[in-house]
Amino acid sequence: MKKENISDAVIRRLPRYYRQLTDLYHRGIVRTSSHSLGQEMNITASQIRQDFSCFGEFGQQGYGYNVEELRSEIGHILGVDNDHHLIMIGVGNLGRALLNNFPFENTGFTVDASFDVSPDVIDTQINGIPVYSTDELESYIKRHAVDVVVLTIPQAVAQATANRLIDLGIRGFWNFTNVELSSPNPDVQFENIHFADSLLTLSYRIANH
Amino acid sequence: MKKENISDAVIRRLPRYYRQLTDLYHRGIVRTSSHSLGQEMNITASQIRQDFSCFGEFGQQGYGYNVEELRSEIGHILGVDNDHHLIMIGVGNLGRALLNNFPFENTGFTVDASFDVSPDVIDTQINGIPVYSTDELESYIKRHAVDVVVLTIPQAVAQATANRLIDLGIRGFWNFTNVELSSPNPDVQFENIHFADSLLTLSYRIANH
Repeated sequence: MKKENISDAVIRRLPRYYRQLTDLYHRGIVRTSSHSLGQEMNITASQIRQDFSCFGEFGQQGYGYNVEELRSEIGHILGVDNDHHLIMIGVGNLGRALLNNFPFENTGFTVDASFDVSPDVIDTQINGIPVYSTDELESYIKRHAVDVVVLTIPQAVAQATANRLIDLGIRGFWNFTNVELSSPNPDVQFENIHFADSLLTLSYRIANH
Repeated sequence: MKKENISDAVIRRLPRYYRQLTDLYHRGIVRTSSHSLGQEMNITASQIRQDFSCFGEFGQQGYGYNVEELRSEIGHILGVDNDHHLIMIGVGNLGRALLNNFPFENTGFTVDASFDVSPDVIDTQINGIPVYSTDELESYIKRHAVDVVVLTIPQAVAQATANRLIDLGIRGFWNFTNVELSSPNPDVQFENIHFADSLLTLSYRIANH
């Protein structure tokens, strides 16, 4: 599989392809084409062929793509068949909403534990996930493999918490704090959820439609 | 201001520019350049100049951009100085997290009301926002201007609720349901938050770093 210098824009389209192909698959559709995918997703057919070509050869000239196969290939590239392990720090409303409703298992992640500072929730479970005290983070991380930490904590403690976790060896962060986190260590990956970017895009579209 | 056929990719970069410029502004930085913005944001300088040229002339040759002015211009394009009115449907954990923590006012939105089906929350307030019964939606929307509805409701009722609201004249949806909503009416704008796309991007980056 070729995977050199793939741009962030291409990588960010992969989950969209995966989502669209999953939808087609669940609707029983067996075959698609770059043209048809493009129309459904508002992407040009040539862009789609170019994106896929970064990862190897999919589909056959004149036949198009087998939906199930292509979905499986892209899922594999994204790592949905990996077994990534994840913990969550902060089980306020947002953390709780994710633990109760987000289908982590569909993305190849297992949520093993969550952590909070509030005595009201420590030693409880949320949707079957144990809640520990953040005092236990160090000892937990030393004893368990943790690929990603979900940060659903207040802004004020975001960077300090990230720094503490990076020192403990954590390299992946799914960051909901609205703080742009950073690290001098190039191996640390932050994926930031920016709700405001999304709402501002909507604001623009409403005003300029 | 020129605004024809601006691609979705350009529009989605605008909030990122706005965020970066806000950060520079708060750090007291007066002047920047497409080169320097590009380095901070991992976008090429020529891409930035091309994006800005869709909206008119910003900055001066050889001087660069005044941070405060450029921030204000982009904010204006995004509508942060509009007074958009928003209501929320569904005040479970996610809705509650947004009402308590998301700075709607920074994006030009005022949250006027929220709605839920649960007798436990109807007639309460969350962070000062009243919670009404969803039975009152029709009468509320007839009496108030509503630009955007935030959908933080279960998947199973997402499309039906959207249809009901479109019939009542709602044209903007900020959709957290993980259901890809649609409408035959081209005036209806859906902005979907896809948490899974974000986590899958992280999954890819962890596996391929």
